[in-house]
Order: sequence, then structure tokens, then C-alpha cells
Amino acid sequence: MKIQYSLLKKEENTNARLGKIKTNYGEFDTPMFMPVGTLATVKTLSPEELKNVNAGIILSNTYHLWLRPGEDIVNKAGGLHKFMNWDGPILTDSGGYQVFSLANKENITEEGVPFKNHLNGDSLFLTPEKSIEIQNKLDSDIAMSFDECIGYPAEYDYVKNSVDRTLRWAKRGKDVFNNENQSLFGIVQGGVYEDLRRHCAEELVKMDFDGYSIGGTSVGETKETMYKMVEMSTKYLPENKVRYLMGVGDPIDIIENVIRGIDIFDCVSPTRLARHGHAYTKYGKINIKNAKFKDDFSPIENNCDCYACKNYTKAYIRHLITCNETLGSRLLSIHNIRYLIRLTEDLRKAIKNDNIIEYKEEFKRNYYGKEN
Amino acid sequence: MKIQYSLLKKEENTNARLGKIKTNYGEFDTPMFMPVGTLATVKTLSPEELKNVNAGIILSNTYHLWLRPGEDIVNKAGGLHKFMNWDGPILTDSGGYQVFSLANKENITEEGVPFKNHLNGDSLFLTPEKSIEIQNKLDSDIAMSFDECIGYPAEYDYVKNSVDRTLRWAKRGKDVFNNENQSLFGIVQGGVYEDLRRHCAEELVKMDFDGYSIGGTSVGETKETMYKMVEMSTKYLPENKVRYLMGVGDPIDIIENVIRGIDIFDCVSPTRLARHGHAYTKYGKINIKNAKFKDDFSPIENNCDCYACKNYTKAYIRHLITCNETLGSRLLSIHNIRYLIRLTEDLRKAIKNDNIIEYKEEFKRNYYGKEN
Repeated sequence: MKIQYSLLKKEENTNARLGKIKTNYGEFDTPMFMPVGTLATVKTLSPEELKNVNAGIILSNTYHLWLRPGEDIVNKAGGLHKFMNWDGPILTDSGGYQVFSLANKENITEEGVPFKNHLNGDSLFLTPEKSIEIQNKLDSDIAMSFDECIGYPAEYDYVKNSVDRTLRWAKRGKDVFNNENQSLFGIVQGGVYEDLRRHCAEELVKMDFDGYSIGGTSVGETKETMYKMVEMSTKYLPENKVRYLMGVGDPIDIIENVIRGIDIFDCVSPTRLARHGHAYTKYGKINIKNAKFKDDFSPIENNCDCYACKNYTKAYIRHLITCNETLGSRLLSIHNIRYLIRLTEDLRKAIKNDNIIEYKEEFKRNYYGKEN
Repeated sequence: MKIQYSLLKKEENTNARLGKIKTNYGEFDTPMFMPVGTLATVKTLSPEELKNVNAGIILSNTYHLWLRPGEDIVNKAGGLHKFMNWDGPILTDSGGYQVFSLANKENITEEGVPFKNHLNGDSLFLTPEKSIEIQNKLDSDIAMSFDECIGYPAEYDYVKNSVDRTLRWAKRGKDVFNNENQSLFGIVQGGVYEDLRRHCAEELVKMDFDGYSIGGTSVGETKETMYKMVEMSTKYLPENKVRYLMGVGDPIDIIENVIRGIDIFDCVSPTRLARHGHAYTKYGKINIKNAKFKDDFSPIENNCDCYACKNYTKAYIRHLITCNETLGSRLLSIHNIRYLIRLTEDLRKAIKNDNIIEYKEEFKRNYYGKEN
């Protein structure tokens, strides 16, 4: 079965939407934040810990799994869910984002992208067909089309050509797609140019994907530019399909983009920040290594319902992080992921109550410690 | 309250003994293997995971906690149990073992040991009184006397002088000991010399410690020498007190020393082996990185009751270890610790059934893959 998206409610004053997604591995509500499990593991965490933070879906990485352990091993294991012992929904990206960061843009051809294996420098070549073939074998619930993720700034002509190629690649991927239990999303690119975003969205919609992603918004622009790119993309997407904003996970960005009609998000930041000793709190990010936490025997956040906050003090987590003990980054990862998922839960409530603007304003006042 | 050791049964054919230890943080059966939580965390694991492998008691490290976070922080947190969120029994070593590995033997004085901080090279000085003062503040259930851990080989005269100093240090530590909810163990040293082991044991017994450790048996000797040193120590220890063999955790050594009357063991090996991708099995240690496990979708051990074996395949754990994902060493740590604790559970059964020699022989046949 393909995923089924149901739009349950639209917020009165904004484009925010409440929805539900049914998959072969259970259903979840949107807006939702997806933790990233690059190598078929959300760094330091067990599947039970992901369940306990209410993760509705996780993301895994086609490029990384292609190299290690290889899609055939995962397929032989019975697919990614069985391989990693996660019985909830999984979305796989296309590998496009990783490949482009390893490729020389000038070598990109109509056929695909030559690039260097980041582990051993070997020459590799990824095509839209290969990306889909790998994802079909990984057997995730949602696969992504292979697209070019354009950097910033980028000239209009470059973006125009790139968008057209991304559309041809989306078509090629769709044509070879072969997994009836998997859904396929198209990715809206087009840089900062509204006519290109519109063109890309409209052409993808004509191809009738199971859902749509918005790409290329988190690559170095200002927040305002990002929000504009999202607006000029969601505008041209159908209401009855899910919308996924790729690689965005800053709390403020999640709020602002939910307001602009986004349903799902992913980002490595909660686990990456955790490894560096950072924790999200209502009043902004804190660095647990700060000396003032040395004998602070209160939790990271007093009212947080996560395992870390219910059982451990800042002083202990600080000690673990200072000593490079992995339980430290594990506890902070649990907290940070729970924080973002709780944020999406709060946003769902705000949508129900039609007060998302008030919610945002209060959130920002607390997070930035002043009126914004 | 001090710990209370009850000798429940002696095996008919050997010196193996079944016992129970009551502490302020619950009771546990002996023989028992203690996982090592050097820095107030058993590497990669949560307290719940330690409960799930049936860990009856864990060990933590005075030297390491003295440096980070410092015993005063731990004390302010309410003691080590509260600091690390472990509500079971804890034993702390004296720091002697670590300090001697960082010290120049020639600088040891009657007063104590000068050595270099392994983190920043600072000059530090540890005395028997200081070690006890730190442990009193850590508030573990069982504290160790500060002793000199003698290397191997060591001349008779050196060992004789060292044993006498260790006895004077044990007395000094006992004299300043000040925590009525903590027990204090004496440590039998004496190298390979029976008269010195006997002298040390008898003098410690006169001082009436709450239990006795046997030290200096795991520092590079053959297994046979180790077993002999244990024999020449247990022989002179009272039956109504618990006996702890320090730093020994090889499965065969646990069996052989239970047979010689040892009650508790500790060793870093299950977690250290895990980090290097090694797992204990009935048929000996395996290296999960071995290519043959690439598509082996069976658990580490078919009949193991641990979380790792019930939920994950060798192929997946191999993938995690190969990619340096910490869930890999976490799963192997769970398995390896459970393996050693299950071994002590099996040994308790064998003591009940008076068939520990048969148990040992079958174990060795499987573990070494041939008659031994």
C-alpha cells in the first residue's frame, strides 16, 4: 500500500495544517519532526528510545546505505525496517544531497552524477534510476526522487537548466520505480526564483507523485529567504498531498514553516548538537559544558517529559559529556529529539485551537529572551 | 548499615560457595560479576540496561571520579547512586591500581604515592587517608583499602616490604574511615609468595574488615599462577566474609576462581571487547567485523536472553561496528555483560547441584572447541 495522507484541519489564520499519514508501518500525525538515522541508526539511540520520544517516522540515507552495508544486504535482511529493528515508518532520501556535496558540478551530465566515495575516494556514478533501485530495495515507506540540490547563490540560467534536469530525472525515477509498498515523492527545487519554483512544482504535480518535498532552502540563505522559498513552493502544491521540507530542524524554522503549510521536517541537528553538548530549552540552547552547570542538580528542563529530564541532572550529563562518555550524547539526543517532536505536538494543538500565531510569538519571546 | 554476607551453601566437591549480600541498595546473590562503570557510567549503557542484564552490583573508580567531576560534586548530588541514577549496590576501588600505573615506583613513600594526572600531567599525591575520604564522600556501598598493586615479576624482598606497607596503609585507612552506611574491604597482596599472601590475609583478618579482596593476580601472569595466588589467599580468609577477586573477568577465570572460593569479580573486558567488535559466545569469542557475518541474519547467540540477541542480527551489529555507530558497542556491551552475569547464574545453579566440575568441563569443551 502507498501512504495515505489525510488533511484533517486548516488553521484559521495561516496556512498551517493538521494531518495524518497512514503507512504500512503504522500512522502518525502531522506536523511531525523526523529524527535522522543516516546509517540505519539514529546516532546513539535504540528503536525503543525513538518510540519513547514519540517519533512517528525516521529518515535514513540512501547514499550511506548504498556504500555500507549495501542495499542488497539490507534487502536480504528483509528491508530496512527489519534490518534495523524499527517497525515504524521510514523515509529515505535519494542520496542527491550527499552526492552533490561530493561532486564537481561541472562533471554532472544528463545521465547522472560522478563523484568520489567519501570513505575511500573511489569513483562512483549515481543516476536517478540507480537511486530509485537502491530505495526500492531498502523498502522504506517513502522514497525521494533524485534531484540536484542547488547551492546558493545561483544564477537564474543555471537554476533554470538544473530544474529542468531535476524534472527529467524525477520522470526517469518514476518510470523505473518498482515497489508497490513504497511511495515516491517529487522534490521542488528552483532556488530563490518564484517562476522556477512554480514551474517545478506544477510539472511535478502533473506527474502525480505520492507527496512533495521542498529542497534547497537550507543551504546558507537567511531565514527570510528560506521562508519565501517555502511560500513560493507550497503555493503550487495540492492540498491533498503531504509536504516535506528537507533538512530543516531549527525550532523557529519548524514553527515558521508549519505556518507556511509544511507537514514534515528532518534535520541532523538534535543529535549533532547533542554530541557537542548542546541542548534545546524553552529559553534557547544551552551548552551543558558551561562551568555553571557543574553542580546544577536540576534537569535540562524542569517540565520536559523525556527520559533524560526525568532521571538525570545537568551536573551528571555535563560530567558525561566532559568525559566523552556516550551516555551523555545519548541523553542529550533523547532530550533534543523529544524537544522537537514535542514542539510539533504543541503546534498541532495550536492548529486545533487556531492560535498558532500567538503560540509562535510566545515561543519566540521565551526562546530569544525578548520580544521579536 | 554495613553489607551483610550470608554463606548459603558450599559445593560438595570444591571450594565454590553460594551466598547472598544485603546492602542498603538491595541484595544480590553470589557468585556475581560486576560491570565496571569507571566514570560513574558503564560505558554506553543506561541503568535500566544494567538492571535488564541482572547486574547485582557495579564498580566505579575512585581515581577517575576524584579528577572528574570531583568527590565533592558527587557528594553534593547526594552520593554516587543519586548522581548516576543507579539505585543498586556500588563498589568503589581505592584508586591504587590506577595510581600505581601512573607512578614511578621509586617515588612511593610511606606517606603515599606521587603521580601524574593522566589528563593534564599535574602532580598529584594519593594517600590511604585521602582514598578513604574520597570514597566516604562518594558513598558507595563498599569501599576498598588503598594498597600497592605489585607488578610481576617482583622480588621476594620487594613484595615483603610492599605487603607490610599495604597492611600499614589498610590500618591507616580503617582508622579514618567515617561512613556508617559503607563497608570497607581489605586487599590481600603478596605476589606469588604463599607466606606473604598468608601473612597479608591473616593480618587483615585481625583488623576485621567487612570483606576481603584479592589483588595483584591479573597483572600478566599465566592463568595457573593466578589460580595459585587465589588459592593461597582464600585459604586464610574467613568463611563468613565475602571474597572479591579484582580485575578478573575472563569466562574461564571466573569459573576456575569460583571453584577456588571467590564470590565477586569485576573486569572492564566485556565493554572494552564490545568497543572492538568482539562478543563472547558459548563457542568462544567472535569478532563481529569478520566478513562472514556480513549477511548473517542470526543473533550473536541463538539462546541468549539479552536485548541484543532478542532483537538484532550479527549483520546489523557488524554494520554498526564497521561504521563506528555507538549502538553497535552498546548492543555488544549488553550481550557481553549479560554473558558473564549469566555465567555466574549458571555457576550458582551448578553449586546448588554440586556439579560445578562437570559444568566447567562442558563449558571448556564448548568454549575452546575441544577437550581440555
